[in-house]
Amino acid sequence: MEILQTEIAVAELNAATLHASLGDVSMESMNLLNQVADTYPDAVSFAAGRPYEGFYDVTQIHEYLQVFCDHLRTRLGLSETETARTLFQYGATKGIIGDLVARSLAVDEGIDADPASVVVTVGCQEAMFLLLRALRADDRDAVLAPSPTYVGLTGAALLADMPVLPVRTAADGIDLDDLVVQLRRARGDGRRVRACYVTPDFANPVGVSLPLADRHRLLDIAADEDLLLLEDNAYGLLNSAADRPPTLKALDRHRRVVYLGSFAKTGMPGARVGYVVADQRVAGATGGDTLFADELSKLKSMLTVNTSPIAQAVIGGKLLAHDCSLVAANRQETEVYRRNLRQVLDGLDRRLGDRASVTWNVPTGGFFIVLTVPFTVDDALLEHAARRHGVLFTPMHHFYGASAGFRQLRLSISTLTGARIEQGLDRLAALIDERLGESDAPGAREATGEPLPGEVA
Amino acid sequence: MEILQTEIAVAELNAATLHASLGDVSMESMNLLNQVADTYPDAVSFAAGRPYEGFYDVTQIHEYLQVFCDHLRTRLGLSETETARTLFQYGATKGIIGDLVARSLAVDEGIDADPASVVVTVGCQEAMFLLLRALRADDRDAVLAPSPTYVGLTGAALLADMPVLPVRTAADGIDLDDLVVQLRRARGDGRRVRACYVTPDFANPVGVSLPLADRHRLLDIAADEDLLLLEDNAYGLLNSAADRPPTLKALDRHRRVVYLGSFAKTGMPGARVGYVVADQRVAGATGGDTLFADELSKLKSMLTVNTSPIAQAVIGGKLLAHDCSLVAANRQETEVYRRNLRQVLDGLDRRLGDRASVTWNVPTGGFFIVLTVPFTVDDALLEHAARRHGVLFTPMHHFYGASAGFRQLRLSISTLTGARIEQGLDRLAALIDERLGESDAPGAREATGEPLPGEVA
Repeated sequence: MEILQTEIAVAELNAATLHASLGDVSMESMNLLNQVADTYPDAVSFAAGRPYEGFYDVTQIHEYLQVFCDHLRTRLGLSETETARTLFQYGATKGIIGDLVARSLAVDEGIDADPASVVVTVGCQEAMFLLLRALRADDRDAVLAPSPTYVGLTGAALLADMPVLPVRTAADGIDLDDLVVQLRRARGDGRRVRACYVTPDFANPVGVSLPLADRHRLLDIAADEDLLLLEDNAYGLLNSAADRPPTLKALDRHRRVVYLGSFAKTGMPGARVGYVVADQRVAGATGGDTLFADELSKLKSMLTVNTSPIAQAVIGGKLLAHDCSLVAANRQETEVYRRNLRQVLDGLDRRLGDRASVTWNVPTGGFFIVLTVPFTVDDALLEHAARRHGVLFTPMHHFYGASAGFRQLRLSISTLTGARIEQGLDRLAALIDERLGESDAPGAREATGEPLPGEVA
Repeated sequence: MEILQTEIAVAELNAATLHASLGDVSMESMNLLNQVADTYPDAVSFAAGRPYEGFYDVTQIHEYLQVFCDHLRTRLGLSETETARTLFQYGATKGIIGDLVARSLAVDEGIDADPASVVVTVGCQEAMFLLLRALRADDRDAVLAPSPTYVGLTGAALLADMPVLPVRTAADGIDLDDLVVQLRRARGDGRRVRACYVTPDFANPVGVSLPLADRHRLLDIAADEDLLLLEDNAYGLLNSAADRPPTLKALDRHRRVVYLGSFAKTGMPGARVGYVVADQRVAGATGGDTLFADELSKLKSMLTVNTSPIAQAVIGGKLLAHDCSLVAANRQETEVYRRNLRQVLDGLDRRLGDRASVTWNVPTGGFFIVLTVPFTVDDALLEHAARRHGVLFTPMHHFYGASAGFRQLRLSISTLTGARIEQGLDRLAALIDERLGESDAPGAREATGEPLPGEVA
């Protein structure tokens, strides 16, 4: 019997017969970066794009839940049974805090969103997948995105079998001339370009923001070329100057913009709550014309059914506790981010200001700064930096799908403070000086020549 | 200026250029059923497959969170900062309660699962999508599933562009002879059959359970035919007799079974927490051999990043509060389901036992009973039942993709109690007698002929 059993083949899968996304280099990026961070827990990390956690306190979760339940009872007049049912049971696929999301968009961003056009999602990541899945009808469909771009967009596109066509990044963000060039080239090749993904405010990874004039021009291009814009705004509210230009959605008069919102940076990552505002009409849908939000909701019902009402209640409570203003809810954190950004930029200046071959951009807010150096920045350098210098950053090639960015690194300013920043910058400067000392080697000198495609600053 | 602006086309999408799943009849099912329920809120509903909510109390959510945080502090030795970070921040993609899930599987199901093979998902629905997405490499790939089947499986397959090939349902569940026939036919047609989806315990919608001998035979077929089994066990623990046969996964000695778990019925739907146990080895993956769970986790990182740690903490707390036994956690609910099932079966017998043309199956547990009648059961009849008789059920054609099942209806016994059940059955009997009285009409008589494919009882 024992022998018979061992003769039966144990099930084994082969990677070659699994979905192609699993073999893509972008899918490995997050794993590799997390692995380095786990291996060197004492390294000073400028790698993590997480929000500052110094003010976290578990009692807040209880308080937010209570605020939201009180809102259901007193303002919406729900009985105790109905209140419990709202949190415990399955809920509407589009979510239970769409009205609060719409109010916060009005208060903080001057965006006039109909709650019916809001779908609350499991983080912004689910919203990206839903959008790309909906917009991908056949092999011709593609989406434009600036290169370098957020790995989450690349990953969602891989899951949706949707090619991402790169657009050059200029000093202030997406290069609009190149956008038109790439759009027309793709159409000339028989592609259906369904949308362009863009992060106008403090883009991950480049950190820069699109000037107002470019925002207007981008909207004009979208109208002229019949293009949808997928605006991702995870960072806009944090650490921004008073004169931050309006979002694309606030300027949108022709429903050209689908707005992607995240509460990961302004609410809390652990709720996994994001949303999409999709107010476009869809003609010819089963049962008559619908809102794009309703089509996305149909897909969501088969992907995650609905976003946890408990998680939504936590975010809803945080919104209610601050009169639906995330700017107000994040005053303390914003001060930390502002101080950190200044400290890192000043610290880079003091340590590396006289190294002509080392440059960096100067974002006015957000989490990210990009350094350009005259030597190769790859995963081997990251490992060396962690082991020998005790400092972590993100090699920029991870945001180029390993096709470029090998002389750039991203610094995140969001999680460290004070002395730890100074220590980290000392270590980073030591690494850079070590590499610069070796830059007489061939190859390294060559690398100081022409900028790489999409290079910023 | 005003005139110029109105000349610019407002963005409009066309359903014909959206993903094909949006046009599928299965995607409309849930919408339509919810719409009827919303329109007739006072109707007695045997439609909803929701868990019983009579014991829900918001304070439980607070208690479960506290129990889980105490577990982090005392048993895992986390500091207050680390405890807060665990709930507030991004977490491991595979989840933070994999160990508790594995313990509950050992306690309740006799399943020996390595926590490393567990991926905690946003409900069982996300697990289904991840599985089908991973197993769908190209156009040849397909999955087998009994017909009728759970609409969530159909929907996930639509999102993954994965065809579902139907297998006949016999009186006790999936017809194993037909499974082999369909498998070989599909392979003969050049299809790669990646897996067979099956719900051995109290399947939704048919309510029946697969006998032990059939479970062994199904595992043998899987081994002989090199087939993966996707075992969905949302209902097994509820309302079951002491002699319930073991799950496929408990019997699995060759990693043939991927186990899909849900806390929607045994924990609470509002947490949106489910999981998958995928202990299969994957050869040839980037970076060497991996567990299938790790490949699913990679996909999840690009779909929802991770399942909300707050939602996981609520479920983790509920597990801890009951020594990781969901059987223990659901004693009160199980008693309600057992009583309800008996009451509905007895009530059907009393009211319809002498109508020879009306039959139903007799499940030993779970939520569902299927009635077979000699007249057409479609959405028009449901609307009529709601409006004229004040009773709701689910027409079975929704589980056949509208290709069959037009003389069957599903009754769910999970949410009603006592007098409300009697009232609902009176109304249902009145509807049936009304229809039987009209069955002299042509067409109606015809319908009493041969059973439809997949018809049960």
